[in-house]
Amino acid sequence: MVRTSKLLGSAEDIEAAFYDAINRGDIEALMAVWSDDEDIVCVHPGSPRLVGHAAIRASWEGMFERGSLIIEPRNVLVTQNMMMAIHHVIEDLGDVEFDGMDGHILATNVFVKTPLGWRLTLHHASIAPGAVEHEHRSTAILH
Amino acid sequence: MVRTSKLLGSAEDIEAAFYDAINRGDIEALMAVWSDDEDIVCVHPGSPRLVGHAAIRASWEGMFERGSLIIEPRNVLVTQNMMMAIHHVIEDLGDVEFDGMDGHILATNVFVKTPLGWRLTLHHASIAPGAVEHEHRSTAILH
Repeated sequence: MVRTSKLLGSAEDIEAAFYDAINRGDIEALMAVWSDDEDIVCVHPGSPRLVGHAAIRASWEGMFERGSLIIEPRNVLVTQNMMMAIHHVIEDLGDVEFDGMDGHILATNVFVKTPLGWRLTLHHASIAPGAVEHEHRSTAILH
Repeated sequence: MVRTSKLLGSAEDIEAAFYDAINRGDIEALMAVWSDDEDIVCVHPGSPRLVGHAAIRASWEGMFERGSLIIEPRNVLVTQNMMMAIHHVIEDLGDVEFDGMDGHILATNVFVKTPLGWRLTLHHASIAPGAVEHEHRSTAILH
């Protein structure tokens, strides 16, 4: 399989390339950010688990055929070491309604360091209700 | 904060302790599997992102008060290195219906190796429609 060797950079760069490819509807660029691992995982909001390149590619092709997507990741929380990075993001859809739902999308993106550079190995997205009013965050520890 | 030093073992052991604590409704055991990191993340199906121990603890206490949960993880896909482990699991709810929905739950669990051993740092669960008939898996690569 042909992979571009030009896709280098940090996990943040690969994540930016992922959302850029989504926003441009560019299936080749989108698939290039994924790891070659057979067990790559993608969960679209409200959908079953997809495993492997062919199933994941087909799902995105279907979404691109139904129209353009504009997704901007924000409020990214990062857990990272030398070989793996977990980003938990809120996906801002702008004015787009997702399947008519009033909500926002949460996504966990996992990147692994491969011989070709950082690559996406898991994207798990789901719908949360309502607008993003505030972070449900605690700094104090109760016990 | 008091943490048990007895909670040792692999990421798989900590995941087993997590689901065991859920199934017993044991909030102390449940919170003991989490990392001390302030930015621990928990997403319950169809719910907003929770960040930090207090918010996460309160959410599980609320769930335990509403009744017992029986969740068995299965079809676990693992990506792991020395310091981090990502498990993507299908949560089998047995005969329990989740909020009246006909579906199953997908979860991404991220574990990090801490000085105390492997601990959970992210749990992202979401609802997928229908029963788990078959894995949407591809071994061939289309291009």
